[in-house]
Amino acid sequence: MSDFTHFNEQGHAKMVDISEKNDTVRTASARSSVSVAKEVYDQIQEGANKKGDVFAVSQVAGIMGAKKTADIIPMCHPLALNGVDVQFDWHISKEETYSIIITSEVKVKGNTGVEMEALTAASTAALTIYDMCKALDKEMTIGPTYVLKKTGGKSDYQRS
Amino acid sequence: MSDFTHFNEQGHAKMVDISEKNDTVRTASARSSVSVAKEVYDQIQEGANKKGDVFAVSQVAGIMGAKKTADIIPMCHPLALNGVDVQFDWHISKEETYSIIITSEVKVKGNTGVEMEALTAASTAALTIYDMCKALDKEMTIGPTYVLKKTGGKSDYQRS
Amino acid sequence: MSDFTHFNEQGHAKMVDISEKNDTVRTASARSSVSVAKEVYDQIQEGANKKGDVFAVSQVAGIMGAKKTADIIPMCHPLALNGVDVQFDWHISKEETYSIIITSEVKVKGNTGVEMEALTAASTAALTIYDMCKALDKEMTIGPTYVLKKTGGKSDYQRS
Amino acid sequence: MSDFTHFNEQGHAKMVDISEKNDTVRTASARSSVSVAKEVYDQIQEGANKKGDVFAVSQVAGIMGAKKTADIIPMCHPLALNGVDVQFDWHISKEETYSIIITSEVKVKGNTGVEMEALTAASTAALTIYDMCKALDKEMTIGPTYVLKKTGGKSDYQRS
Amino acid sequence: MSDFTHFNEQGHAKMVDISEKNDTVRTASARSSVSVAKEVYDQIQEGANKKGDVFAVSQVAGIMGAKKTADIIPMCHPLALNGVDVQFDWHISKEETYSIIITSEVKVKGNTGVEMEALTAASTAALTIYDMCKALDKEMTIGPTYVLKKTGGKSDYQRS
Amino acid sequence: MSDFTHFNEQGHAKMVDISEKNDTVRTASARSSVSVAKEVYDQIQEGANKKGDVFAVSQVAGIMGAKKTADIIPMCHPLALNGVDVQFDWHISKEETYSIIITSEVKVKGNTGVEMEALTAASTAALTIYDMCKALDKEMTIGPTYVLKKTGGKSDYQRS
Repeated sequence: MSDFTHFNEQGHAKMVDISEKNDTVRTASARSSVSVAKEVYDQIQEGANKKGDVFAVSQVAGIMGAKKTADIIPMCHPLALNGVDVQFDWHISKEETYSIIITSEVKVKGNTGVEMEALTAASTAALTIYDMCKALDKEMTIGPTYVLKKTGGKSDYQRS
Repeated sequence: MSDFTHFNEQGHAKMVDISEKNDTVRTASARSSVSVAKEVYDQIQEGANKKGDVFAVSQVAGIMGAKKTADIIPMCHPLALNGVDVQFDWHISKEETYSIIITSEVKVKGNTGVEMEALTAASTAALTIYDMCKALDKEMTIGPTYVLKKTGGKSDYQRS
Repeated sequence: MSDFTHFNEQGHAKMVDISEKNDTVRTASARSSVSVAKEVYDQIQEGANKKGDVFAVSQVAGIMGAKKTADIIPMCHPLALNGVDVQFDWHISKEETYSIIITSEVKVKGNTGVEMEALTAASTAALTIYDMCKALDKEMTIGPTYVLKKTGGKSDYQRS
Repeated sequence: MSDFTHFNEQGHAKMVDISEKNDTVRTASARSSVSVAKEVYDQIQEGANKKGDVFAVSQVAGIMGAKKTADIIPMCHPLALNGVDVQFDWHISKEETYSIIITSEVKVKGNTGVEMEALTAASTAALTIYDMCKALDKEMTIGPTYVLKKTGGKSDYQRS
Repeated sequence: MSDFTHFNEQGHAKMVDISEKNDTVRTASARSSVSVAKEVYDQIQEGANKKGDVFAVSQVAGIMGAKKTADIIPMCHPLALNGVDVQFDWHISKEETYSIIITSEVKVKGNTGVEMEALTAASTAALTIYDMCKALDKEMTIGPTYVLKKTGGKSDYQRS
Repeated sequence: MSDFTHFNEQGHAKMVDISEKNDTVRTASARSSVSVAKEVYDQIQEGANKKGDVFAVSQVAGIMGAKKTADIIPMCHPLALNGVDVQFDWHISKEETYSIIITSEVKVKGNTGVEMEALTAASTAALTIYDMCKALDKEMTIGPTYVLKKTGGKSDYQRS
């Protein structure tokens, strides 16, 4: 059974040494979502078609969030990200429940993976949607949030 | 149907004017979770009992995350938070699935609510757990994340 | 002739003591601008009418910039801003020069003025427009940038 | 006519992927200015000759501002800057108007240009001068602010 | 024997609730120092008398450091500081050892003390002196660093 | 006698150009300490053995502090740190004085040294211990703080 790599011999967390790892192009993609009331769906659609685009603000927050990852997650290594994108899609179930599906993609040429940056981008985008719609609906739920895919490291990962 | 309050007449997002609102003691509590493999459960338990406490790091991240809310969420008002706490509990289902339940509580004497701070604390704590355990388990899932309770504003809220 | 208030007896800058000043509702408004080539004008208009709204991104940057003022300007007092808005207007001269006019408004209930926050919001919004359009036009010019109006302090100010 | 590169297919801003671009030594220089009343000129000169150097504070703010560029400008790539300098010169017209000319220079070995860092350094330095002198003169005007020069990328640029 | 107040019932650190405490004017003063080689002393004195003032940069760093305290120290409450000053004095012993004595003063109208802000200001100022002089002298030593005085809380404190 | 390298020809501080320096693996180690009352010693020991680990929080603060170095120290170059660790040891003298010895280690593959990052990590860890124990003991003293060792640059350094 593998051990945590994040702890020193005193049992305290450390930022793991990655100076021996090679610079490669690495990508990661993560997903989050916000389930909302029909009223929120209607308002966002109306705004997006005319003015007042909730997703435009959430997108900026997600991208800036990715850049703040090492400032927010204690043991994350700072990385000079090379590209960040966030996409929004509506999922409407047969039972007429409304969900915003958030997909982030992060790219770096560096010596460690960017799944935390992708997760932070998606989470920040979701929190921003919550913030901008909370006057309409207090029951919104964020997530599940998870890593979709990861390439460029020791081994690739694709969520099954 | 109520309109979004976060947009100006040009259809762009603004930080809503709250200068007329009164200072009251306001609290909010939010919940997130991380579902993990049995291996992660075993390792965290072993660490907490001896050395290498994942929750201690995640706790610090959650509290610092609450303080960064207005820096992360674009339209959030900066607030001088008066108290922040985060708690962790294990939930083990009959089918032996393992989840860490994260509960945040935030308190302020101020003129707007702190549900975004509570959500950001819980989300940051969850992301930190993911970061520290991802070498063991890439399939971890964060959330659902939502507001549990809110007091001290125009109307209280309790998740049903 | 009045002296600088920002220096201590050793001749070094200090953050001036404002603990004796009263909390009042204070507002400030500032203006900046970006002069752009016709090509930029055309592209922004096309984007705004359909998709790809430069101003939406710039707006978010301006509002977040206002919140970062005390982190950027060394002697500025941290303030819990109560409201921030940014507006964009096109000015097209008879000679067909194109300028984006940026107007920021900031509000606080506090013990010092917010003209620096208004100036920082307008400047950050202008820099963001530059960033997003620089692939099309390297000759863009930002400013002049100045305070338009200020209320709620010892004396009001209105630019003549 | 070239298109904006900063938008994804959903019409939302993204941080453009630069992972394919090469690391080269890149420089950029930008200019801003602050026009001030004679009283401000007199006070700054007196301070600089003895004690209380406005430019020393503004210089520090400009350099720290350059380092914060990717935190302030949403779509800017984080870059590990290799050198930043800011210079101040007085320009006094025949009509006895007084202007502080601010010139920034930024250098990086990296895969994207640093004109935004140079512009942010110059703008932050200008805002800091405004802040430190605003008790004497509320009519100060910042800018125009623009890129002077850029080397090391696909094509060099020199303002005409 | 008093218990730590910073831990919750799970044994993890929390930001202590201060919402019941009253807003009063509070001050704190802290001291640090940097012991340096004679060569550093000579260079700093020469710079201060002409150009290149190490203390001017250190002063700005100390003041900005005070404002970052709650961002750096995990359990510190964010506070809207009302005033910050830093002073530098030389202490030259009979044995011709050279020390820079750093004294910070911080003021707030708020519901908790500012000794951490005073300590952070003094520490940041000391680190900045180290950074700017390290090419001349690698043996510099920072500190001791401690609280000198504290007023305005439940009980005043004066270092004996 | 060598001159300060941190000043430009106008006598103002600049961030020195390091674009010509080579990327090598560099390490630095620094030391700080906190001298505390016996009561603090007893409480920390009790907490560490059961629950409420002061060092766990201080460790996280130290690591995050290392990452913030370029944001706190004005002329420091931003660096993508590859590893950070902090260790705590008790030193109890014959006279029964109690000191926490803090040792930080920082590693980077980069073009400038990391002694400032090591010093900032150790200082931030010390300040956090002070913060968490100040309710028990106001006489705690931080430091001396200094660089222990440095490798990978032009010349190695080992404190004598």
